[in-house]
Amino acid sequence: MASQIFNFGAGPAMLPQPVMERIQKEFLNFNDMGVGLIEISHRSKQFGEVLEKAKALFRELSGVPDNYKILFLHGGARMQFSALPLNLLARKQPRRAYYYETGNFSKLAFKDAQRYGDVRVLSSSVSTDFDRIPDFNLDELDEDASYVHLTSNNTIYGTRWNSFPDTGDVPLITDQTSDILSRQMDYSKFGMVYAGLQKNLGPSGMAIVVIREDLLGHAIPTTPVLMDYSVCAKDNSLTNTTNTFAIYTTMLVLEWLKEQGGVAAIEQRNNEKAGLIYELIDRTPFYSSVAQPAHRSMMNVTFTLPSEEMTDKFLKEAGAAGLYALKGHRNLGGVRASIYNPMPKEGVLSLTSFMEEFERKNG
Amino acid sequence: MASQIFNFGAGPAMLPQPVMERIQKEFLNFNDMGVGLIEISHRSKQFGEVLEKAKALFRELSGVPDNYKILFLHGGARMQFSALPLNLLARKQPRRAYYYETGNFSKLAFKDAQRYGDVRVLSSSVSTDFDRIPDFNLDELDEDASYVHLTSNNTIYGTRWNSFPDTGDVPLITDQTSDILSRQMDYSKFGMVYAGLQKNLGPSGMAIVVIREDLLGHAIPTTPVLMDYSVCAKDNSLTNTTNTFAIYTTMLVLEWLKEQGGVAAIEQRNNEKAGLIYELIDRTPFYSSVAQPAHRSMMNVTFTLPSEEMTDKFLKEAGAAGLYALKGHRNLGGVRASIYNPMPKEGVLSLTSFMEEFERKNG
Repeated sequence: MASQIFNFGAGPAMLPQPVMERIQKEFLNFNDMGVGLIEISHRSKQFGEVLEKAKALFRELSGVPDNYKILFLHGGARMQFSALPLNLLARKQPRRAYYYETGNFSKLAFKDAQRYGDVRVLSSSVSTDFDRIPDFNLDELDEDASYVHLTSNNTIYGTRWNSFPDTGDVPLITDQTSDILSRQMDYSKFGMVYAGLQKNLGPSGMAIVVIREDLLGHAIPTTPVLMDYSVCAKDNSLTNTTNTFAIYTTMLVLEWLKEQGGVAAIEQRNNEKAGLIYELIDRTPFYSSVAQPAHRSMMNVTFTLPSEEMTDKFLKEAGAAGLYALKGHRNLGGVRASIYNPMPKEGVLSLTSFMEEFERKNG
Repeated sequence: MASQIFNFGAGPAMLPQPVMERIQKEFLNFNDMGVGLIEISHRSKQFGEVLEKAKALFRELSGVPDNYKILFLHGGARMQFSALPLNLLARKQPRRAYYYETGNFSKLAFKDAQRYGDVRVLSSSVSTDFDRIPDFNLDELDEDASYVHLTSNNTIYGTRWNSFPDTGDVPLITDQTSDILSRQMDYSKFGMVYAGLQKNLGPSGMAIVVIREDLLGHAIPTTPVLMDYSVCAKDNSLTNTTNTFAIYTTMLVLEWLKEQGGVAAIEQRNNEKAGLIYELIDRTPFYSSVAQPAHRSMMNVTFTLPSEEMTDKFLKEAGAAGLYALKGHRNLGGVRASIYNPMPKEGVLSLTSFMEEFERKNG
C-alpha cells in the first residue's frame, strides 16, 4: 500500500477524511446513547434531530427557496428515473416530457420514463459521442409539456451544463447526482432537483429530492407508495424505515462543507483543482481531453493516452503510487479523475505530478 | 449513562457487538485498500466479493434451495409491498391475490397491493385485536390466485406463525422482516421470502428478497425498473449503485451467525431468551401478555402493566437502568422487548431482574 491513498473513484466516492473519522469515532456510541446511530429507531428524537439538521444545512448551503420540499428517498438517482415520470407526467395532458440526451445516465432516465407516457428527446450530442452539451433547441418544446429533464453533469463523459435553458412555464428537472453543491446554482430556476448521495453527499443507496411544492399531488394512481413524492413530503421522508446511516453521513458531510466556507468557496476550489489537470492536458498532445473545452466538467476529468497499452500502464502505475480508481467508465475507456468536493487539492497535485512524470518516461 | 446498555428497540435494532466493532475497526481502511468500504465502487472486485459472500452465507445458513435467487433491493420491506404485486399479480388472470391480516404491516402490504389487482383478505384476527394468528381458511382460496401473502412475525403485536398453511400450487409469500434466520424454516414451501434488513440482518434501507426462479418474468409492464425482480436477478442486484454499506454489514452479521452455530443454535437461544420473559409474565398478574400463548413471538415480547402511569414509570426507570427502547409501538402502547438474534441472554436477564424488582416495589 502506498504511503498516502487518493481515491479518484466516480462513486461511491471518497468522503471527507474528518467525516470518516467522526463516523468511526462515534460508531459504537452515538450522541452518548451507548449504542450506534445505525442501531436506533428512525422515529427516535435523536434521529429526528439528525434528519432536520441535514435538511436545514442543505437548505442553507444550497439556497433552495422555502417553497421547495427536501426529501430523502430510497434507491438513489435511478429510482427517480421512474419516480419522476410517475409523479410529474400526469400533471398535463397528453403526458408529454422532453429529455436532453447528453450521455449514459440521461439515456437511462429517458428509457425508464418512456413506459409512462410520450417522452421525447429535445436535443442530443450523440453524434459527437457526447463530448459536449447540445443546443438547447427550445423551438421544439411543446409549452404543454409536463417537464423538461437534463443531467447537469455527465459523470462518464466529463461534460457539464454551464448555463441552463429557460423552459418558461415548463418545469426544468435536473439530475445533479455528480455535481450537487459543487457550484452555485439558482434553485428557483428548477422545478425539481435530485441527486444520488454517493458522490458529493454521502454513501450509496439513497437520493435527495428537492421539489417545488406546486408540483406535488399529480402522481399516477399506480405509483408505488414509497415513490410518491406527495406521500414522502407529507411523511417527512419517514413513510417507512429510512436509511438512517445515509442521512446521518450526509448531515456530517454538509457540516464539513459549511466549515469549508460553503458552496461559493468549494466552487472556487473545485475550479482550481480541475484547472490543474486541464492545463496539463492542454499543454501536451500526450494526453487528450475527451470533453470539448467549453463544456468540461469540474467534477470528472476525462482524458485518453496514445494507446490502450499506454492507458493500462498508466492505470497500473498510478494505482501502485496510491492514485486509486482512475480507470474510465467501461462504456468509454481511457482515464477519468473524479474530483468531487471531498478531494483535496493535494490529491490533484499528486495526480498531475504523476502525469508529468509518466509522460516524461513514456512520451 | 448506565454502565451497560441493552437496546430492545424494534428496528433499526442492535447489531452484534463484534460486528459493530469490526465495522468501526476497518471503517477507514477496508481490506487494506487504504479507503473505507463505503468509498469504493459497487462494481469493484472487492465489493463483488462482499456481495457474493453475503449471498453464499445466506444460502448456507437458511438452506434456501438452488432454484431460488437471492436479491438485495432498495427501500426495505415496504418497497416490496408494492414490488410483490407488480411482479407476481399478473402471472395469473384475473390478477388475484390473498392476504392474511395479522397486524399493522400485513394491513399495509394489503393496502399497497390493492391498487394493482383483485386483492382479498383470506383470514384476519382483527376481531381479537391481533392477539393471535387466525384460522388458515384455505377453503376460500381460489386455486387460480397469483399468490398468498402472510407476515411470519408481527413486530407490533408480538405474534408469529408457528406453522404455515399449505397453499398447494398457489405460491406462499412471506414477509419475514422481524424473524428471518431466527428459526429454522423449510424455504422450499415458500414461493418468495422477503425481509427488511434492519432487525436480524443489518442496517436500515434495504431488503433481501429470496424468490423461486419460475416466479420471475411476470412483472406488469409499468413496473419501475429497480422493482422488477427479473431485472434485478439478471443484474445480480447491481442494476444501479447498490447500498454497499448495508450488504457489507449483512455479510458480517451472517458470519457472526455462523460462528454462533447457525440458525438451529440461534433458534434454541432465542427460545430460551423469550421463555425467560414469558415465564415471568405468566407467573404474575402484574404483567399481562398481549399475545395468546399459542402464537407468541420469540422476537418481540409484548406485555402491559396495570395502568398507563405504571407503564410510563416502568419505561422511565428501565431507561435509567440501561434497558433502552422498551416502549410499545405507538399503535398499541404497553411494553415491547424486541430480542432479535443479536440480543445476548445477559440482556434478557437484566430485563427480567428489572421486571421482578419493579413488581416488588410497585406491585
